[in-house]
Amino acid sequence: MSIYIPKGYRFSAVHAGLKSDLGSFDLSLLSSDIPAVAAGVFTQNLVCGAPVQYDRRRVPSSGVRCVVANSRVANACTGERGLSDAEAMADLASAAVCGEAGKGLVMSTGVIGVYLPMDKIRNGITEATKQLAATEDAFTKFAKGIMTTDTFEKYVTKQVKLGTGEVVTIAGVCKGAAMIAPNLATMLAVILTDAAIGAEAAQGLLSEAAEFSFNCISVEGHVSTSDTLLLLSNGAAVSGELARDDWARFKECLGDLCVELAVKIPMDGEGVSHLIVIEVEGCADVASAKIIANKIANDVLVKTAIAGADPNWGRVISAVGTAGVNFNPKNLSFKLNEYELFKNGEPQNFNKNIVADSIKNNRETIFNLTFGEGDAKIKFWTTDLTTEYVRLNSDYTT
Amino acid sequence: MSIYIPKGYRFSAVHAGLKSDLGSFDLSLLSSDIPAVAAGVFTQNLVCGAPVQYDRRRVPSSGVRCVVANSRVANACTGERGLSDAEAMADLASAAVCGEAGKGLVMSTGVIGVYLPMDKIRNGITEATKQLAATEDAFTKFAKGIMTTDTFEKYVTKQVKLGTGEVVTIAGVCKGAAMIAPNLATMLAVILTDAAIGAEAAQGLLSEAAEFSFNCISVEGHVSTSDTLLLLSNGAAVSGELARDDWARFKECLGDLCVELAVKIPMDGEGVSHLIVIEVEGCADVASAKIIANKIANDVLVKTAIAGADPNWGRVISAVGTAGVNFNPKNLSFKLNEYELFKNGEPQNFNKNIVADSIKNNRETIFNLTFGEGDAKIKFWTTDLTTEYVRLNSDYTT
Repeated sequence: MSIYIPKGYRFSAVHAGLKSDLGSFDLSLLSSDIPAVAAGVFTQNLVCGAPVQYDRRRVPSSGVRCVVANSRVANACTGERGLSDAEAMADLASAAVCGEAGKGLVMSTGVIGVYLPMDKIRNGITEATKQLAATEDAFTKFAKGIMTTDTFEKYVTKQVKLGTGEVVTIAGVCKGAAMIAPNLATMLAVILTDAAIGAEAAQGLLSEAAEFSFNCISVEGHVSTSDTLLLLSNGAAVSGELARDDWARFKECLGDLCVELAVKIPMDGEGVSHLIVIEVEGCADVASAKIIANKIANDVLVKTAIAGADPNWGRVISAVGTAGVNFNPKNLSFKLNEYELFKNGEPQNFNKNIVADSIKNNRETIFNLTFGEGDAKIKFWTTDLTTEYVRLNSDYTT
Repeated sequence: MSIYIPKGYRFSAVHAGLKSDLGSFDLSLLSSDIPAVAAGVFTQNLVCGAPVQYDRRRVPSSGVRCVVANSRVANACTGERGLSDAEAMADLASAAVCGEAGKGLVMSTGVIGVYLPMDKIRNGITEATKQLAATEDAFTKFAKGIMTTDTFEKYVTKQVKLGTGEVVTIAGVCKGAAMIAPNLATMLAVILTDAAIGAEAAQGLLSEAAEFSFNCISVEGHVSTSDTLLLLSNGAAVSGELARDDWARFKECLGDLCVELAVKIPMDGEGVSHLIVIEVEGCADVASAKIIANKIANDVLVKTAIAGADPNWGRVISAVGTAGVNFNPKNLSFKLNEYELFKNGEPQNFNKNIVADSIKNNRETIFNLTFGEGDAKIKFWTTDLTTEYVRLNSDYTT
């Protein structure tokens, strides 16, 4: 698949010495040649990393020139010193890229409760600035530099043709594969576009896109201290802001990109053998549908059943009943991979071996739940829970 | 430890043929020689078993003469037929015990989505009625008859001396060890006393005791369709209702009994290697403390860390931050087995090996969290999450 690089952005990544493997990238930098609008969506965790606290106060805004990110150390639960380290890191990058402080955003992922090694960060930024380039290679390096336990770099790029004939590009990069020992703080994503959007509009677009993508995925339901999603828009490909007619198609493209990008996270989930796609339909409102989907997505018994290729519908129905959303169980139906297991509140006859095989033989398992309460629906992605996941996440001493 | 049998109750259990092992008890019956007051606390799951729906409409009340319970089939997600089966089961027991219908309560645990085999239930009740006895042996048989994946029968008995010199007995029985394949619906408990209490008062006592015992335990956070806690009070040991002076000591004894009984469930949790005791202190109110404790108790990353003897405090702090309770992270401190790992929002230096060994060498791990928000506190019990748990809960095909 082609990689489209949005105009006016440059990328790099270096080995600053945070990761112990020599040569593995651990500091990523991106710059915008001209000031960009920036929007952000952040973890809801009350205990949030210093970079989250720093960025949150600076978006939505315009005038942003760079994003600097590191892996290995999350700079979370690090008190006052962590806050000043995050600010110093953002300012070092900003000064290196455009000669003045205050124009940078910062993202950190890795171990919680450890201070950033600022000497390594400083040297890494100097080196990364020299290497900034607008190439596919530099772009994928940036994606590698934010990886922690990820097994592959994660990015999606798309283009939209506007009514004026101009083509704008959207490129998204993310990392995340659950939290793993000793303790990683998890999801980072940055989306860049060369379209021109106002700061408040960009924030609205991003928040909505996140709602149906990054907020609809789960590996084990742990919302990390560091989850960060940024959107930069520099207008480098266009002569003016998005016209009213182009708005819907840009928004759709951004939404699709966010979903494709977000789903890569559970696909790369630690020790995962199945991606579970949860379709919840017929709810009174989207918020209710999401609460239900989220409850199923994080139910340990549901996840272990799928790991064992067990069409154990009772666990799904039971999980739904505890979601805290009101509904009439008599109107509830459940399909697994198109097999109807529970219909209008009554158990259905089905061939267990056939349904079990449909789980066993596919990487994706599809749950479809319908409630007779309304028209709202949502799609949610989660993983199964395997002994390998538990092994990875308890294996500290060896 | 002595078993105290409260006066006026008789017990039995038989093999009705629901479990496949010949001779294993699967139908339990208890009767009160005189009409008893009954109170109940039930699952909050919107999808609840037919026995829960039946009992819920019949407590608090007086005039109850028996409780009949079966294992292997939960009679949950069984629609209208399930409801009439539950009623028939209660009435068969009631008629057998006292010659008239409508005086019985019913509890079922086992597979979800399967109908009760009513012929076996009918024959089982007939046989169990013949065997009713007021002996220790009959009492422990009752406890065995409601076991599913439990590895030991669970009961606690206590006595309280009243101001009148009369001694009253409280005896509690429960079962539960998580939900396991194909799908069990889980926690049943019944508490009997020969003290005399009014129906509304009994309900109040039971609800409060449950709040700090059965509602403060978790194995994997899945609230089953069938959770049921009943209290029967027949007054057989006393000449009159509890005097005002005796109330506090009876209540304390009942509360202690409920905690001891409830903690047996995570102690017997499937594949469990550690019982985690979570002490949450310094909260604005008990409800907040409980929400926080519950969040930690069900966090997969926290539970896997303890399985691996990893003093991974970042996961605990991060879980706390997502509980939805407001607090100032700067006042948060965390101790593990008395070692201070995080204090007033800052990471503390500690010897990882020593703390890891304190986890490895003890069956119990103690978390202590203090918030600077108020005086409210709670104690909560959960389990670690081992590869063995996942194996047990995904192992369907073998």
